[in-house]
Amino acid sequence: MRKNKIKEILANGETALSGWLHIPNTWTAELMANAGWDCLTVDMQHGLHSLETAMQIMQAISTTNTVPFARSLWNEPSGIMRLLDSGAYGIICPMVNTRAECEAFVGACRYPPVGYRSLGPTRARVYAGADYGEHANDEILTLAMIETQESVQNIDEINAVAGLDGIFVGSGDLKLAYTGKATHAGQSEAFEAAIEKVLASCQKHGIIAGIWCATLEDAKKRKEQGFRFIALKSDSMMFGEYINKTVSEIRQL
Amino acid sequence: MRKNKIKEILANGETALSGWLHIPNTWTAELMANAGWDCLTVDMQHGLHSLETAMQIMQAISTTNTVPFARSLWNEPSGIMRLLDSGAYGIICPMVNTRAECEAFVGACRYPPVGYRSLGPTRARVYAGADYGEHANDEILTLAMIETQESVQNIDEINAVAGLDGIFVGSGDLKLAYTGKATHAGQSEAFEAAIEKVLASCQKHGIIAGIWCATLEDAKKRKEQGFRFIALKSDSMMFGEYINKTVSEIRQL
Amino acid sequence: MRKNKIKEILANGETALSGWLHIPNTWTAELMANAGWDCLTVDMQHGLHSLETAMQIMQAISTTNTVPFARSLWNEPSGIMRLLDSGAYGIICPMVNTRAECEAFVGACRYPPVGYRSLGPTRARVYAGADYGEHANDEILTLAMIETQESVQNIDEINAVAGLDGIFVGSGDLKLAYTGKATHAGQSEAFEAAIEKVLASCQKHGIIAGIWCATLEDAKKRKEQGFRFIALKSDSMMFGEYINKTVSEIRQL
Amino acid sequence: MRKNKIKEILANGETALSGWLHIPNTWTAELMANAGWDCLTVDMQHGLHSLETAMQIMQAISTTNTVPFARSLWNEPSGIMRLLDSGAYGIICPMVNTRAECEAFVGACRYPPVGYRSLGPTRARVYAGADYGEHANDEILTLAMIETQESVQNIDEINAVAGLDGIFVGSGDLKLAYTGKATHAGQSEAFEAAIEKVLASCQKHGIIAGIWCATLEDAKKRKEQGFRFIALKSDSMMFGEYINKTVSEIRQL
Amino acid sequence: MRKNKIKEILANGETALSGWLHIPNTWTAELMANAGWDCLTVDMQHGLHSLETAMQIMQAISTTNTVPFARSLWNEPSGIMRLLDSGAYGIICPMVNTRAECEAFVGACRYPPVGYRSLGPTRARVYAGADYGEHANDEILTLAMIETQESVQNIDEINAVAGLDGIFVGSGDLKLAYTGKATHAGQSEAFEAAIEKVLASCQKHGIIAGIWCATLEDAKKRKEQGFRFIALKSDSMMFGEYINKTVSEIRQL
Amino acid sequence: MRKNKIKEILANGETALSGWLHIPNTWTAELMANAGWDCLTVDMQHGLHSLETAMQIMQAISTTNTVPFARSLWNEPSGIMRLLDSGAYGIICPMVNTRAECEAFVGACRYPPVGYRSLGPTRARVYAGADYGEHANDEILTLAMIETQESVQNIDEINAVAGLDGIFVGSGDLKLAYTGKATHAGQSEAFEAAIEKVLASCQKHGIIAGIWCATLEDAKKRKEQGFRFIALKSDSMMFGEYINKTVSEIRQL
Repeated sequence: MRKNKIKEILANGETALSGWLHIPNTWTAELMANAGWDCLTVDMQHGLHSLETAMQIMQAISTTNTVPFARSLWNEPSGIMRLLDSGAYGIICPMVNTRAECEAFVGACRYPPVGYRSLGPTRARVYAGADYGEHANDEILTLAMIETQESVQNIDEINAVAGLDGIFVGSGDLKLAYTGKATHAGQSEAFEAAIEKVLASCQKHGIIAGIWCATLEDAKKRKEQGFRFIALKSDSMMFGEYINKTVSEIRQL
Repeated sequence: MRKNKIKEILANGETALSGWLHIPNTWTAELMANAGWDCLTVDMQHGLHSLETAMQIMQAISTTNTVPFARSLWNEPSGIMRLLDSGAYGIICPMVNTRAECEAFVGACRYPPVGYRSLGPTRARVYAGADYGEHANDEILTLAMIETQESVQNIDEINAVAGLDGIFVGSGDLKLAYTGKATHAGQSEAFEAAIEKVLASCQKHGIIAGIWCATLEDAKKRKEQGFRFIALKSDSMMFGEYINKTVSEIRQL
Repeated sequence: MRKNKIKEILANGETALSGWLHIPNTWTAELMANAGWDCLTVDMQHGLHSLETAMQIMQAISTTNTVPFARSLWNEPSGIMRLLDSGAYGIICPMVNTRAECEAFVGACRYPPVGYRSLGPTRARVYAGADYGEHANDEILTLAMIETQESVQNIDEINAVAGLDGIFVGSGDLKLAYTGKATHAGQSEAFEAAIEKVLASCQKHGIIAGIWCATLEDAKKRKEQGFRFIALKSDSMMFGEYINKTVSEIRQL
Repeated sequence: MRKNKIKEILANGETALSGWLHIPNTWTAELMANAGWDCLTVDMQHGLHSLETAMQIMQAISTTNTVPFARSLWNEPSGIMRLLDSGAYGIICPMVNTRAECEAFVGACRYPPVGYRSLGPTRARVYAGADYGEHANDEILTLAMIETQESVQNIDEINAVAGLDGIFVGSGDLKLAYTGKATHAGQSEAFEAAIEKVLASCQKHGIIAGIWCATLEDAKKRKEQGFRFIALKSDSMMFGEYINKTVSEIRQL
Repeated sequence: MRKNKIKEILANGETALSGWLHIPNTWTAELMANAGWDCLTVDMQHGLHSLETAMQIMQAISTTNTVPFARSLWNEPSGIMRLLDSGAYGIICPMVNTRAECEAFVGACRYPPVGYRSLGPTRARVYAGADYGEHANDEILTLAMIETQESVQNIDEINAVAGLDGIFVGSGDLKLAYTGKATHAGQSEAFEAAIEKVLASCQKHGIIAGIWCATLEDAKKRKEQGFRFIALKSDSMMFGEYINKTVSEIRQL
Repeated sequence: MRKNKIKEILANGETALSGWLHIPNTWTAELMANAGWDCLTVDMQHGLHSLETAMQIMQAISTTNTVPFARSLWNEPSGIMRLLDSGAYGIICPMVNTRAECEAFVGACRYPPVGYRSLGPTRARVYAGADYGEHANDEILTLAMIETQESVQNIDEINAVAGLDGIFVGSGDLKLAYTGKATHAGQSEAFEAAIEKVLASCQKHGIIAGIWCATLEDAKKRKEQGFRFIALKSDSMMFGEYINKTVSEIRQL
């Protein structure tokens, strides 16, 4: 089975960088794959893809060595398993608030007897190799999203779930949870304290701490803080900010 | 944030008219948007769209001032949130039978601390404006479907859920529930009594009563009865009935 | 090889009715196929399909006994042959103005030694049967469009082309050619005289005269006049006129 | 309503053969439909289709008399009902482990008062006929998948659920459940014992026993054993094995 | 008929700015439409769209006041007319080298008696208004591409074609024509002289001079030089350069 | 620029094997790419793809080292250039009958001053590398199809065209040209003599001789005869023949 390069990067103590895909298109995905991210996360939750397009996007990613990841639409085994069968080497699962929810998530990513994933890795077997079924439980990364107050309170229980590889802080939602404001702007002590608590728990349990960052400054801060799996913006956020800036500049010529 | 025209129509005491989209196509959707409906509901339950096509259809609707609504596939937060992120300004949720189910539905449509919607309004932020996150809880309409005997029995509890803007009678399913017959034809006293009960409860709770109508005559009757959000047939039902009639006529020339 | 039902209808002296497809969608196409037209013409010229969608639409048509036809994008062998390989049993070719253009069109529809169609009937072989290659020259209908003054002047030369099964009057363009006005409204003697001339020539040469009609009244008139292949409006024209009328009616309730 | 040919085959004591569709494409589906299978199962679980493509594939199947079936993504009413509305005449539901799960599945396939399926058979009404709503409860086949140890233990309770037409052994998953190995190779007594137990229970309850087979030899064995609904491989498995063999042969010329 | 805003901008002596679309996707197109370009050119020549996707992209553009333009795949009436029927308000035609080629191009964009465009403005009639047919000849802009040595030699004859609204310098191809090098880098006197000659001819004939620019600096220079229709890069070029830069920056944190 | 592996294979005196793609689907294309062909030809002429899908299929091919080729829809610069911009490393052009047609074809594949290809290698630049524009003229293979009696008569003139890398015998059409029968079955001396003549001319001019083969036996014969670029059947032909055989076998169990 093709090795999970992200697992190796993390095992080496390095930081993995993930691009984030919202555009339901294989051409922009191929450009992202060529830009040098360690992995690309096809975001089914806030992205605009169908499951079928998600598969095609994983094909576009696979034209390079960039590793295909996916954020599932929800903590639902149905969608998680389809993403894995389509070739995702890591699943980021939204809204994991309790140990039970975390177990449900991790179980959906693992074949029995470890979990309850159904066998039928249609495209994964081609992307990864014929022995995929025998090794997938070892190679697939599972990252549970911490993005509510409840999940922060339960962080030690969540992090203790067997087979969980790490957590991923949904910083937008988590900040909203502590501030009640749906905006990235502004500072929040409660939010920062939650992040510290989550990070400390990950280090205690020896699992990876990941986070989504809205800016390069934010990414720098979180990396220095100890986060080892960093996602930045999304493809269409970057596209939007750059074209808005460009049109503004060309207007002033 | 762009105002929700349907909310304004209803606040003015007027009746809002919704077209209903079953055809997974942006061209017929653009024609519907130009026909003069107040809003168009992308029906994920009995329509034939993927979530990705639903987003493209909302783009086609947005070429006009017609307001994009959606009926979710089911009472599932995953699909509801994706439809909202794609730009839906109202969600009609099928099969809401209890207070708890209604709370789950409404919560999925509202950002914390009111609900538990996840933050990431990818296309909605472009369609509605950069301050979408701050005002969405106020603008998005939530309509719970009443279409079972159980929901009629629980109507007062359902209607009392905080944040619920109204109900929407699934008249096909509700009639089936009272008659046991899967057809629009025929009258039913029990069904009419249920409708009266639902309507009265809405008026008591000061929320909107909506209903799906199979014919213009039905729409007229329901409007006079007090329903204020009227949906008629679907795009492909209308298409089918008109082309069948036309072929019949041309055969007789 | 599956017989061409349209050829049989015409051989029996009856009139064939064609629906006209502009919507790039298989669901509306299936509804059209079930409405009772003798054939359905996938219009590549003024419709909104890609060649790939045109093939899928022919699949949708093939769920019934309705015969798949196509209007090519232009008098170009490339597109004509792809439509035939996709299963079209008749080709309506736009803008045939001269004998040479008509020969080029008809040749593109016939295998050597009659014409120069390239062999490779990918889907046609499945739709029509394994012996498609041997009989296609006999079953496929070719209709050249007469829609310019030049083509009316050359009508006898065009109609004399060996292998041409008939002509199809593009009444919108032909009227524009004689009136200089891009609208269906109004009468024109020159236009009517041209139609009479075209019709007389078809009768003289023993080939089929077809025409596109904007209204049922028009269809009645042309049928009585002697046209034997009648196309009416298009799917999206009919859809548009019916939903506009319906919204107008529901507004007045 | 169009009769369910599979129901008739099974009622006649014959064996029904199902092809299995993983390729999200209407052209390969049409080829499969012409190959002579009794039915074709659009596999939403391990296939690569969106719900919208699944509908288009059912159109491609409907160009023949082959019966459209579907395996749902999961035991979720939302997806099951959409597949039925798209025209599926049978649903194979994954991971049915208990009587309650089986009741939830069967209920999703039946209109009230038998079940809780929502009324709105958009394409089904066209494929099957205008009286679909009145007869669908009688014609639609429901097959619950037995693919875990838990489901084998509960087999008598599952098989006793009213309205269940049969079970379908997910042989890949079931073998994995008993061997802990994600591969089709090798024999397992525990697995064979489980199959015998399931089969005996079906015969006792008078319902159909179906199974997925990885090879022709396997299919032969299961048929002789008494299975009456046999699915073989998948479209892309067959495609892959044949092209790999062909390239190997052409390399050696 | 909806007015052509670009025509008004140019009539006012202002400069029109065009974005350039290579990504076959409606979501990135909607972002471009919201960025503030005066018009967006759907590039069929070097972009990656089918004609069907081009239409959907024009819908996405039409969610704003940005004007939809298209560059045709080639100087072929077939594609040009489909783009116009899909709603394009301007056509940029590649490789116009002679007066005859320019006449063929302009004729394809104009209804008789001025040109030979076929009547059937399927989507254009909805986007522009019911009187589209009567006014399209006046509103649609035609820009012939000057991108070979031959076209520069013939520039006065080309610019004299009746109905031509302007020319558009394909600066990449034109530079290649004079330098023999397929790269934007480097200066070329012959190329600059050609540009001056083209510009002077446009000013003499009172038609618009447009040009494609690879950089903001280039755009500034060409605007100062007198070009009035400026296109910059493409959507995927901008996307690619920004994500490459961003990944490089995040790597260095 | 990424090297053209097919060019290297041929330069080494080896035989290159090409798969042939008719199915408009990226998943079957990825399976073909993994099967071990040296290159895969996306057939726009008798395949069922749009240009947009052709690009996505080239992405799927690019997940492996298999080289993407394309057969153009026709000898038209428009389509040829789009396929090259999409990443095709070789073009097989149908119906090249004369020296002039061959020059037109080869010119469409080469940047000036050698040919008249337009500059804008959107995806090719990503697939091949940033210096694509400078080296494409050297790496892209051009194969003219010989499939008419006229082309056989002109073979020496065609083969003498500067920049032509080889010819490709369309054996289906060529046989039809000599036998007048649209079937692969049966022998023909005139056809075999034509093949010998074409092969001899290629050897004289030092260019590659390629051919399409309907069976493995045919491939063996042509390879031994001296053909060095061998294409076999198509994806859907192979799929069809295997599933038909499989259903026949399972019926007999």
